[in-house]
This record gives sequence, structure tokens and C-alpha cells, in this order.
Amino acid sequence: MPYMVWGQNVGYKTTAVSQSVSQGNGEPHTHCAMSTEVKPDMSLRPLGLEPPPERELLCIFGTGDLGRSLGQRLLQTGYRVVYGSRRPHSCGPLPPGAQVMSHTEAAQLAAVVIVCVHREHYDFMEEVAPQLKGKVLVDVSNNSKKGLYPESNAEFLQSLIPAASVVKAFNTVSAWSLQNGPSDAHRQVFLCGDKAEAKQKVRELATRLGLSVLDRGSLSAAREVEDFPLQLFPEWRLPLCIATGLTGFFFFYLLIRDIIYSYVEQDKDISFRIMVSLANKVFPIVSLIMLSLCYLPGVMAAILQLYRGTKYRRFPDWLDHWMLCRKQLGLLALGFAFLHVLYTLLIPIRYYVRYKITEYTVLQIRENKTEVFDTTVAWYTDSYFSVGILGFALYVLLGITSLPSVSNALSWREFSFVQSKLGHLTLLLCTLHTYLYGWNRFLDPSTYKWWTPPGYMLCLVVPSVVLVLKLLMVLPCVDRCLGRIRQGWERTGPEGEGTKPLMA
Amino acid sequence: MPYMVWGQNVGYKTTAVSQSVSQGNGEPHTHCAMSTEVKPDMSLRPLGLEPPPERELLCIFGTGDLGRSLGQRLLQTGYRVVYGSRRPHSCGPLPPGAQVMSHTEAAQLAAVVIVCVHREHYDFMEEVAPQLKGKVLVDVSNNSKKGLYPESNAEFLQSLIPAASVVKAFNTVSAWSLQNGPSDAHRQVFLCGDKAEAKQKVRELATRLGLSVLDRGSLSAAREVEDFPLQLFPEWRLPLCIATGLTGFFFFYLLIRDIIYSYVEQDKDISFRIMVSLANKVFPIVSLIMLSLCYLPGVMAAILQLYRGTKYRRFPDWLDHWMLCRKQLGLLALGFAFLHVLYTLLIPIRYYVRYKITEYTVLQIRENKTEVFDTTVAWYTDSYFSVGILGFALYVLLGITSLPSVSNALSWREFSFVQSKLGHLTLLLCTLHTYLYGWNRFLDPSTYKWWTPPGYMLCLVVPSVVLVLKLLMVLPCVDRCLGRIRQGWERTGPEGEGTKPLMA
Amino acid sequence: MPYMVWGQNVGYKTTAVSQSVSQGNGEPHTHCAMSTEVKPDMSLRPLGLEPPPERELLCIFGTGDLGRSLGQRLLQTGYRVVYGSRRPHSCGPLPPGAQVMSHTEAAQLAAVVIVCVHREHYDFMEEVAPQLKGKVLVDVSNNSKKGLYPESNAEFLQSLIPAASVVKAFNTVSAWSLQNGPSDAHRQVFLCGDKAEAKQKVRELATRLGLSVLDRGSLSAAREVEDFPLQLFPEWRLPLCIATGLTGFFFFYLLIRDIIYSYVEQDKDISFRIMVSLANKVFPIVSLIMLSLCYLPGVMAAILQLYRGTKYRRFPDWLDHWMLCRKQLGLLALGFAFLHVLYTLLIPIRYYVRYKITEYTVLQIRENKTEVFDTTVAWYTDSYFSVGILGFALYVLLGITSLPSVSNALSWREFSFVQSKLGHLTLLLCTLHTYLYGWNRFLDPSTYKWWTPPGYMLCLVVPSVVLVLKLLMVLPCVDRCLGRIRQGWERTGPEGEGTKPLMA
Repeated sequence: MPYMVWGQNVGYKTTAVSQSVSQGNGEPHTHCAMSTEVKPDMSLRPLGLEPPPERELLCIFGTGDLGRSLGQRLLQTGYRVVYGSRRPHSCGPLPPGAQVMSHTEAAQLAAVVIVCVHREHYDFMEEVAPQLKGKVLVDVSNNSKKGLYPESNAEFLQSLIPAASVVKAFNTVSAWSLQNGPSDAHRQVFLCGDKAEAKQKVRELATRLGLSVLDRGSLSAAREVEDFPLQLFPEWRLPLCIATGLTGFFFFYLLIRDIIYSYVEQDKDISFRIMVSLANKVFPIVSLIMLSLCYLPGVMAAILQLYRGTKYRRFPDWLDHWMLCRKQLGLLALGFAFLHVLYTLLIPIRYYVRYKITEYTVLQIRENKTEVFDTTVAWYTDSYFSVGILGFALYVLLGITSLPSVSNALSWREFSFVQSKLGHLTLLLCTLHTYLYGWNRFLDPSTYKWWTPPGYMLCLVVPSVVLVLKLLMVLPCVDRCLGRIRQGWERTGPEGEGTKPLMA
Repeated sequence: MPYMVWGQNVGYKTTAVSQSVSQGNGEPHTHCAMSTEVKPDMSLRPLGLEPPPERELLCIFGTGDLGRSLGQRLLQTGYRVVYGSRRPHSCGPLPPGAQVMSHTEAAQLAAVVIVCVHREHYDFMEEVAPQLKGKVLVDVSNNSKKGLYPESNAEFLQSLIPAASVVKAFNTVSAWSLQNGPSDAHRQVFLCGDKAEAKQKVRELATRLGLSVLDRGSLSAAREVEDFPLQLFPEWRLPLCIATGLTGFFFFYLLIRDIIYSYVEQDKDISFRIMVSLANKVFPIVSLIMLSLCYLPGVMAAILQLYRGTKYRRFPDWLDHWMLCRKQLGLLALGFAFLHVLYTLLIPIRYYVRYKITEYTVLQIRENKTEVFDTTVAWYTDSYFSVGILGFALYVLLGITSLPSVSNALSWREFSFVQSKLGHLTLLLCTLHTYLYGWNRFLDPSTYKWWTPPGYMLCLVVPSVVLVLKLLMVLPCVDRCLGRIRQGWERTGPEGEGTKPLMA
Repeated sequence: MPYMVWGQNVGYKTTAVSQSVSQGNGEPHTHCAMSTEVKPDMSLRPLGLEPPPERELLCIFGTGDLGRSLGQRLLQTGYRVVYGSRRPHSCGPLPPGAQVMSHTEAAQLAAVVIVCVHREHYDFMEEVAPQLKGKVLVDVSNNSKKGLYPESNAEFLQSLIPAASVVKAFNTVSAWSLQNGPSDAHRQVFLCGDKAEAKQKVRELATRLGLSVLDRGSLSAAREVEDFPLQLFPEWRLPLCIATGLTGFFFFYLLIRDIIYSYVEQDKDISFRIMVSLANKVFPIVSLIMLSLCYLPGVMAAILQLYRGTKYRRFPDWLDHWMLCRKQLGLLALGFAFLHVLYTLLIPIRYYVRYKITEYTVLQIRENKTEVFDTTVAWYTDSYFSVGILGFALYVLLGITSLPSVSNALSWREFSFVQSKLGHLTLLLCTLHTYLYGWNRFLDPSTYKWWTPPGYMLCLVVPSVVLVLKLLMVLPCVDRCLGRIRQGWERTGPEGEGTKPLMA
């Protein structure tokens, strides 16, 4: 079972930088027994020559990847470091300038002990308990899976050494980012612990290492902090399920309506259309529905607030959950729209399309017909394309403003302008694009094969509803009422304070 | 009038995360009168059981969205929190662990009072004035509009309670980001105030909350700080005006030259071309002009410096203003180029184009003509496309390096290399693309309908001027002279120090 | 020789914001002799009126761009500032509120002296040496080139004034970002120095200015810190060389096989194909090879670890170096793929393609042939396109997750999922796309002109090898063994501790 997740990453963190394994064994380290090589940029004067009295001594238990990287970084930042090890004389490569001794000896020297040891090996800690009394114990461990143990590693450590102040920290920081400076990698450290002064010490330590600290409260939050590096897109799950469900449904729906219908009724095998034509019907449909699902919960929340006459009551859980994944819904919708654009632009290169055009031209010659240019068709097809392109461009703009660094640079008003005003405009353009695609086929009975409507008609339902409801919401009277509710006004307050804001 | 902008955001911050209203009423809060529900991740031991003496007590006035979120975050970070409320016994849901009492009682207990109250309700503060003497008052308020009051809210608060030290802070942080940790949202806090020690206290507070603090000076900067969340793309206004103006001008110019000319002179209705063909002429024209407008002020500044022989004189205001919006000009130009690419790639799918190709083929058959393949045409059209694609790829690269997180990761030399060297190369490629598009039609009289040049010729003027001037600037003699000026050398210094750098 | 790089940037930092020169001479500054203009947002009460005793006094040597900007920012943050100048009475514009005097006088007043002077002018420092005894000297200088001097500027300064504590800092921060607040620009400050308490003072200073500090160790790291702003994409060099080499090789290979072969053997001049057809063969080939080169070193490292039976031995230098530039390799591969997509989508607009289609249609009519629609061809071409599009979409997703702000927001497990799982899936799809492109031509002798295989066959070698090896690696037995090695297990430990993890 892996102890430190970053010990596995050769072959994983591929496209982006990742070298912990190679570095972990590499240049910056010299073996503690034969310490000769000193990297120039480490440039620490050897201990003993001129020991500056102000340099604080820290103790690290464990000489694994993280222990060594942390020690190296601490030495570089100006701390003195002593390692505690079970086998002080055969502990593998250590950063130059660090000393290594037994756990007991090392623990006695420092006020802060950083425990870079597997939870599985915490048992030795009880022997060191007397030396750890009153000290700050920093638990940096992670587990390989969620829910492996009844309590968090940090709480387990605290229960082993009740006389020490355990602080959970650094578990989201990798050995790699410690060695290379956190400029390009994760620099967020989550901190929790029961003793404020112990936390303050660790906070200062982390700040000195150039990391950014976020206090997560008492030690009972350690489980949450330990689960953080193990989470796998929790907020993407619902949107991905919706996307998969919609894609699956529309794929089979259109497969039946297009391919199987054609095979059954007209005895033609057009199954090759699955790869491009069918995909290019499914993707825009799913994209439009998901985009409208982004904006539906906001409208529903507003209706609920209007109906209740207050904003001080919880939304139902499903609505809360839905509103929290709007960003992900929107980004997935953008992904599908991107695929739709690529598939559409590819159309004229396809063998089938080239064949059809040639066939059509040949037919015109052979039957000596001349097609008349229809300006109305030109107008509506061009409008259809143009509206689609503008909608996609706005879509991309929404996606770009969703990038963390861009959205952080926007003021609240700017962000809400882009995501609400431009967002609804995007939805309007994309819906219009789909209506123009349908054009005059909505009333044509031949469209309804086997009495089913085509996919693009089905997908117009949700966006149309959202747009109509949003239109109602921006009517002056509704908008004014909603605005008052959102400022804290209540139609019937609990203790007769109905018309006053709750605040102050 | 809304007090806290984030109180409105249901239905606004849509695609991206936004839940303050739902959360504000939701799970993390229990009503102060019936406080029973404690969320596991809050995990604060109830006050009184084991009061750690080191935990500082803070007072919050106001129990609205922000007051509650701030209190919850402070409790989580290890502070004790007491709320001051007009109605301590009916103040709505409060975070578990917080106490609530009257304003006067609450103010007495803490050294720092955070005022989460509308400016409209500041009048009650005067009653509490005796208890606030010598305390730090943190003003977090925003207004709903700019210029609503003669002085900033913070200065107004200071004038009400002259004996307290008012510090403006936290007004750019939303209730939502306080509740959810600032990792994904705005973490920049602007601070201003007249007392250094008061600012220092608030700075420490903000740093503990995981926020990033930027000192904006004395309290008179509060207006600027209060206007920040209300600003709506101030630096985008001029570029957007230029883009709109250019788009409007070229739209009507080409409408007259193409559509109306054809209607008047040839009696043909080709109005359907507005949607795609015309748009695809306007967009690249505007894009190229705006890209060259990015690089023109730099050249003009260099000429001005060469002419004046010094860099120690201000540029005219218009040039300053222009230089400050180059990034926005460039990004808008990229947007237009993106639209141009999409419109161009769409060409072969259009009904009109397909009709024309079929018509042409049919005509060849019927008139029994054979077109001869012209290698020169193949060369120049392919070059035209290839140069355009390479130019667009560089354009996109410039856009990517303009993303805050990317440009922050670049060293100064890297950034200037990309934006200057690659930027001018992009301009060169795009200009070349347009010249190749014109090819041999520059001298063809039939191009000049109604004695007007086509749009692409008009749009070549500015980029050509910029490129020629830039070429002059990189001539060794000019470059050397400019380099010396930019290092501080002056042709005629004020006190005869002409040939020496001003510095040191 | 330029002293401060940011003194040059008119005309350089173009698309992005850049105004140091204009600002440097502009509004925020008033001349020290005729100081009348005070910008409202500076809003510093004049010195003397009410001198708050707590405001610390700092001394700045040098009144150039950086000296002035730094002084302005320090005044805004609440420090008092005194300038030391060679000509205190004619030193050019200074921020209002600052005093200016001779070097000696200024140095006496403050405990921290910030030296904003060219290294070339450090000679005057020796005269001030007595006043600088025991003080903190902050060296902010940069050089115009690497390796200009034998020792770093900071070490040179330390050798001049041995009695002071020199700290290197702020050299990566520009005058511009100091004036405008670091929210949008570089905020990372690298710090190094030999005295911990001196570093602590500068660290506090930088933190107050809203900058983010990273300690780089002792003063001997100053050279590295000084080289930082001068570096020009060091980690991109190898990938760019590989890309250029591959592009060059395949360009000439295909030029010979396609254009020259056709000219020699068939006497046809198809040189026009260089611009688009040839480019669109070279780009996807280079893209696929570079993508597979991203994933090859990870597989090789795993094999090496399996062979050695331990992770505690260094990889060869070339492998280390290769693994460190995987991100850059991947991004360049994405760039080539992007070009490939644009070139491909452009195909049907090309004159040559339109000519060929018309010619083909005309031929069919004239020879009265009818082409039969081949469903197999439709299937395989559509699959080929569809797989390519999906591969490109994943490619773009990998690129987006490589953006610093996005990758920082991911947990370790999420990042490794995207970059490893999705990365290998991308490689698989792109390789499949190329195999489908080849289809049944692999065994066709006419494909091998002049006995050379076509380019797409050559480029399939590396990705196929990578995919096969990766497949072997995920076999349960190999995967288990590798997992144990990466947790620290060793086949033959140095002192008989073979089967135990080295850690703890």
C-alpha cells in the first residue's frame, strides 16, 4: 500500500512535470554514510563551522522521499534539520547538512517533530512518547484509499501520544514541489489541529517554505484533509452521469430513427453514418441540453424564492446539488459543442459527401435539369451557420472565463456579467441556431418517422422553457420583487419583521 | 439597494460556482435560537467545555450572509466569534459555536469589530460609540452603485466613530468564497486605513483566513477599494469602442460596395451574403487593424523618445491610455480572427458555394470546356492559406500567454520575447496573408467599384505603416540610440548631466 | 548595458500591459525640487503633520525607475522612505512624501537600505561603508547578460561591505508591477542571504507589499536568482530542438518522396503542394512522434526500476533530462496537432482540390462511368476522421489541464488520472487514427516509392512501441511488482533489509 502518493508517479504525471522518483534518488542527495557531493545551489555551509544561533532546529522522523525533500527544503530556507531513523547508520541518501540519529535522540533536540512515516509504522512512536511530551507533532501522512481506518491518521497519532500537540499539514504537497519550489505546482497547505499555538508554529513553517496555508479547524477535520489528495473529480460526477445518460439515450434514439428505420423501411444499409453523421447529431443535442441545464436551476431557485417570499429558507437538496455543478455542466456542454464544430467542419472532406455531390452533379447533367438558386434557402442556411458560429464563440468565451486564473482576475460584477448576461445570450443563440436548423420542417409530417420527432426537436424543449422563464424573470415587476427578496426582504417574517431586511 | 453584492447571485454567477444564497440558508447554519445541527467538518468543540485561553475573540456586527460566512470561517480558523445584533434573540441562522448579544455587549468583549451592516444602517453605530473607543473597526461594505455617497463608506464610518481605527477590508471577498475556502475563488483582499497597527491586525486576520492582502494606503483610498467590485471591464471600454466602430464602418462600407453596388449596377439581389460572406470580410479586416493598433503605440512611444532624446518626460495622455489597453486590443483582435477562421472553414458547407460548384461543373460539361490547372494560382492560394494558418496559430499562442497564470509563470525576458518578437511576427504573417489575398488584384481597375478600394486594401494601411516603422526601429543605429535612452541616458540633461544615466 | 530590464519595455511587453516608461515619468511622480502634484490615490499625509511613530523608515539608494516605484509602493504600504542620491538636489521625479539626501545621511537613518543602483556604480558604496555597518543591504540588481561577472552582484556587494548583511531580493519584480499592484503580474520574490534575521526583515517587507516570498537559501544562490529574469525558456530548448529536427527531417524526406519523385519519375511539377499538402503531412507526423516521446521515458523508467529492483538509484542523466521536459514535449505536440487540424479542415477550400473534384465529375460524365458507393470505404474514412477528432479533443483537454491555474486546482489523483490515463488514451486514439489512415496500403508495394515507406508508417514506430510496452506494464503481475518498488521495496537491499521499505 503506497504511503506517499508521489512515490508512484513515474509514468503518471506524464505530460506535466514529474520527476520525484528520479530526483528522489538523484543529484540533490548524498548518502548519509558517504556524504561527499554537495550541489552548488544548496550552498549551505557545513554545520559546526559557524552555527548561527538563530537557526531553528527541526526534527523529521522518516527518511523516505517526502522526509528527504522536506528536509532539503527546510535546510535551504535556513532551518537546521535532524532526522530520526530506526537505522541511523543505513538510512539511505539524505540532503547534505542534515544530521541523522535515533528517534529518541532526535526528538529530544527539537520542539517540532515532522512525522514522515507510514501510519502502518506509527507503533514505534509509543516508545518515543516521553521525548515527545509537549512537542508539536506534524502528521503529513496520506492513505492509499478512503475509509481504510476508522479514524484519521492524525487523530490516531494524537491518541498514541496524548501529551503532544498533533497538527495535520503538508499532505497535499508533493516531494517534487518541495524540491523544485512551489511556483509551478500545488502550494496550498491545509492545516488542522486542536492547539492554536501548535498550529501557529506550523503555519509559520509553511509560510517560510513559500506555501499558502488554509486553516481547516480542529483535528477532527483531519479526515477531510487526508481525503483531499484521494478525491477524483467529485464535483464532475453528476455532470458526467448526465452527459453519459443523455449521450446514450440520444445515440440509441437516433440509431433507431435513422439507421434502423432506413434498414427496415427502405432496406438501405447506411450504418457507416454512425461514425460521423450520427455523432454530429448526438453531440450538439447533448451540448444544448446541458447548457440549458446550467441555467435552469438558477431560474428554479428564483421561482422558489418568489413563491416562498424569502431567501432565508434552504433549497431542496437536489437543487443545491444541481446549482453546485453548473460550472461543470457548462464546461462539458462546451466540450460537446467543440466536437460538434469539428465534426461539422469536417463534412465536406468526407467520402460520402464528395460522392453525393458528384452523383448529384452527374444526375443534373444526365437528366438535363437545372437547379434554380433559392435566395430564401441561402438566407436561412447562412443565418443558421452564422448564429451557430457566434454562439460557439460566446461559448468559448464563457469557457475561458471559467479558468481559475481568469475568473480570479474579474470583479464580482464582471464575472456575473459574463456568466449571466453572456451566458443567457449564448443559450439564446444556440437555441436559435437549432430552430433555424429545423426551419420549416417542424410541420412536415415526413419528419416524424415512426411517429417520433427528430432529435433536434426533442432537445429544444428544455432550452425553450429556460429562456421563456428567464424572460418572465426579467419583467420589471418580477425583477423588482426578486431583487428585494435577495436583499433580505421577507414577505412574512417570523416575528413580524416582514418588510425589513434581516440583517443588522 | 443591495448591501452585499453576493446576496443577489442566484441566477447570476451561473456557469461558474455560486451558491451563497442556498448555502447562506443551508446546512452549515443553525438558527441561533434552536442550534442543534452541527456539520461534521465544522467540528468545533462547544464553547465553555474547554476554552483555550489563546483563542482571540472577534466581534461581528450584523448577521447577514457575509456576517454569518465570515463568522463561520473565523470559528473554523480558531477564533471565537460573538455577534452584535439589534435583535439578539431572533437573528436567523448563525454558525454553531458563535454567541449573539446586543451591539453594546458584543463590542465591549472584542478588540476588533467587523461591521457587516449596510451603510444605510450605520446610524446605530453612534449609540455604540463609547464601547468602540480605541477599537479596530473593519468596514466590509460595498455600495450598489458608484458615486452614491459623497464619501466612501469607510470614511463615513470613521467620521461617525472618530475614536476608533477604521480599516477597510474584505469587500472584494464573497460570502461564498469564505465558506468554501478561497482556493478556487477571489482571495485578494485590499486593505486601507490610517492606523498602521490597526491595519496590521486586520492583515494578520486576513492572512490566517488564507487570503492574500494588498495594502492600498490610507483610508482615503477606500473609495477606490469600494469601487473595485462594481467595476465593469473599465480597461476593455476603449478597445470595445474601437472594435465596434471599426466593425460598423467596414460593415456599411462593404454593404455598399458589395450588396448595394450589385443591386444598383447589376440588378442582382445578393443580400443573403450579409450573413456569412460579408461577416467573413469584416472580421478579418477588424482583426488585422486591431492587431496593428496593438503595436502602433509602442512604435510611436519609441519615436517620441528618440525625438525628445529622453525617457524622463511623460507621454501624452492619449498615448498612455492607448498603451494601457494593448492587451485588450490584442485579445479582441484574436476573437475576430477566431471568428474569421470559423467562417472560412465553413465556406464549403454553404448552400451557395455548393450550388456554385455544381453550376460551374455543369457549365463546363455543357459548353464542353476544359479548365487548365494553373500552378501559379495553386501556389499563391496555398501560400495564402498556409501563411494565414501559421499567423493564426501564433495569434492563439499570444492569447494563451496572456492568460494570467501563464504570463505569471514567464520570466520578464520570456514574456517580452513572446509578446514582442512573436507578436510582430504574427502581425507580419497576417499582413502577408492579406497581401497574398489581394495578389494581383491591387492594380486591376475592376476591383475599384464606384472608385472605392476593397476592404482588405484599406485594412492594410495601418499594419504596413507599423511594420515599416518597426523595421526602422530595429536598424542597428536607431536601436542603439533607443537602447541608451531607455537605460536613462538623456541627449540634453537638465543640469549638464546629459551623457550620464540619471540614476545613482 | 541596461541595469533594470524593465526600463526597456516600451514596445516590448506589447500585447500585455506595460507602461513602466510612461508611468515612470508620469503622473505618480513629482520632481523632488518642485513637488506639487499629488495623485489622489496616493493620499499620503505629508510627513511632519502627524508622524505616526510606528511607521518604519527605509532607505533607498538610487532614484531610477525601480527605486522610485519601490519607494512609491512602500509609502503607500505605510513605510517612510528616504532616498540616498549622488545629487540630492537634481535627482529627477520622486514619489510625493519621500525625502532625498546624500547617501551617507540617508544610510544613517534606516536599518534597511535597498540598493537600486547598477552594479557598475557600486564603487561609491565603499565610501558609505561605515554608515552601513550592521545594516541590512537589499540587492535588487540584475545584469543584462548571463556570466558577465565572475561573482553575483549580491556577493560582490557583500564583499564590498563585509560588515553589512546583504540580502538578494525583488529582482524578479518589475517597476510596473510595483506601481500597479501585483495582482496581474509577477508577484514571486526570490530571496537569498546568509543572515537569517536580515532575510526575515526583507521577507516581512515583501509580504507587506503583497508579494509572495520564496527562500532560495544562502547568498551563494544569488547567481541563480539573478539569472532568473534572464532565462529564455530553458526547459523548452530540448523539446524545440527535437521538434525542429523532426520537422526538418520529415520535410526533406517527404519532399524527396512526393515532390522530387513525382518530378523525376513522372515529370510532373507538383511543387505547389509544399505549402499545404506537405505541411499537412509533416505536422501530424511530428505531433504523433512527440506525443509518444512524452510517454516513452515513463515506460523506460519503469523498466529500469523493474530491472534494478529498486527505486533508490538515479536514472541516467539523459533520462532525467527527458522526463523533465515531458510537459513541453506534449504542448509542442498539441501545437502541431492544432496546425494539422486547421490544415485538414482547409482542404476543401483549396483551388487544387476544387479543380480535382470538378475534373473528376467531368471525367465521369464524359466517359459515362458511374462510381459505385463503397460502404467499406465510407466506414473506414469516417472512422478515421471520428477517431482523429476524439483524439484531438482529448489532446486539447490535456493542454488545458497543463495550464498552471488548472493543474494547481487538481488533486494529485485527478492530475495523474488526466495526464496518465487520458494521456495514454489520447496516444492510443491518435495512433489508431494513423493506422486507419494507412488502412490497406501497408501491404501495397506501390506505396513504397523508391523503396522508402511513406511518412505515416515511419511515425507509427515509436507510438506503437510505447503502447505495447505500456500494455505490458499494466499486466497485473508487472503492475504489482512495480507498485511495490515504488513504495520503497527493494529486491536486494544494501544491508540485508531487502524486503522492507526503506522509510522509517
